[in-house]
Amino acid sequence: MPRYKLTVEYDGTPFVGWQKQDNGMSVQAVIEEAVRKFSGETVTATGAGRTDAGVHALGQVAHLDLKKDWTPNRVREALNYHVQPHPVTIRSVEIVDDAFHARLSARRRSYLYRILNRRAPPALDLHRVWHVAKALNAAAMHEAAQILVGRHDFTTFRASLCQAKSPVKTLDRLEIAQAGEEIHVHAEARSFLHHQVRNMVGTLKLVGEGKWTGKHVAAALAARDRRKGGPTAPAEGLYLVEVSY
Amino acid sequence: MPRYKLTVEYDGTPFVGWQKQDNGMSVQAVIEEAVRKFSGETVTATGAGRTDAGVHALGQVAHLDLKKDWTPNRVREALNYHVQPHPVTIRSVEIVDDAFHARLSARRRSYLYRILNRRAPPALDLHRVWHVAKALNAAAMHEAAQILVGRHDFTTFRASLCQAKSPVKTLDRLEIAQAGEEIHVHAEARSFLHHQVRNMVGTLKLVGEGKWTGKHVAAALAARDRRKGGPTAPAEGLYLVEVSY
Repeated sequence: MPRYKLTVEYDGTPFVGWQKQDNGMSVQAVIEEAVRKFSGETVTATGAGRTDAGVHALGQVAHLDLKKDWTPNRVREALNYHVQPHPVTIRSVEIVDDAFHARLSARRRSYLYRILNRRAPPALDLHRVWHVAKALNAAAMHEAAQILVGRHDFTTFRASLCQAKSPVKTLDRLEIAQAGEEIHVHAEARSFLHHQVRNMVGTLKLVGEGKWTGKHVAAALAARDRRKGGPTAPAEGLYLVEVSY
Repeated sequence: MPRYKLTVEYDGTPFVGWQKQDNGMSVQAVIEEAVRKFSGETVTATGAGRTDAGVHALGQVAHLDLKKDWTPNRVREALNYHVQPHPVTIRSVEIVDDAFHARLSARRRSYLYRILNRRAPPALDLHRVWHVAKALNAAAMHEAAQILVGRHDFTTFRASLCQAKSPVKTLDRLEIAQAGEEIHVHAEARSFLHHQVRNMVGTLKLVGEGKWTGKHVAAALAARDRRKGGPTAPAEGLYLVEVSY
């Protein structure tokens, strides 16, 4: 009974998120249904991270077990046929050890947050960026972001619904840079709290606008109180880029 | 009666093209309707190029005349409000001389053609790239492309419906390069024949696959016969990037 590791890209716009829910279509359900159509088997596709509604993925990872020993190429081609017409694609499939677990074995998660920072709203990138019309200072955002790097109690940046046992996480990288008309936020950690990236981005936007300085960010972090942080940035700018094992 | 120059970005997917037609929604009609809602005036928005159905623009240019002397910022903000919910955005507005004509004054048009060259179909870039699953040799495509640069009779790469007076055009640049999983084709000329970029890309894909060499491209060009060229690449990979004056 081989275990397959799937690397998955999706446009999060039409989905309730990665995980199956009663209130709409999930990426997980699309993949599990494609497996059923292809192999007749009912499986659970376990994802590395539960991306929220509207959050995109370039490299979400999932694992699933099949009774029959298909080649990885055959699985990829069959799934990509059967996920249509949903905006989901299986970038690659590998056979992995039974001990491999997409969520528990993950050593690093990399996210990208895209802010479109110009007067004109997006046309081609509608639902794929956070549009901020007012000019932001990316260098100031980057400098303040470094306050958040390292091991901290991230309660200020944690959604109230977050189910993690501890609010203490180690943030390995939080880099913010101008990229043409966009500002890109690169965030890396072994794991993140629910809404952590979006709450950090929403807070750092206050710095980019000149409303806050690094001191405010440090005070917000130290307060360990969600109400002391900035607003939650919208889901549409967030991409799960890569999960490393 | 000031003349306004508009720089326009759009997702071409839902449109019949730039130009107004009886069979569906055009970008031109969306802009003219936004002008009517904003100013009450009925105008013609003249575009630099008639992009086909499904072709995108990052920097299409159009001009139009208004009776009232609005500031450019006011025009941009008002149009961007009224073009909603269509995937069209006015990137910038300038007041220009009455002699300015978006099509006739244009000195250079720049196009980008995006090929997604990987096994997995696109999810995030669905309708925004040409998906070619078989590996293409971008260096060979680039080398063969240089045969097309310069002043030539481009009849082989001209749509039968093309209304240009002459099939002779000067192609200033045709650069092809790998960009991660994509192959990007950059094409620049004062003007192009109808479908010229898409027909050149469809022909050069044959070189990328190893089916054709530069000799075949040279022979096709010399034949001055559309039937001797490769197939027309799909609209969805093509972007009008910039029009220079």
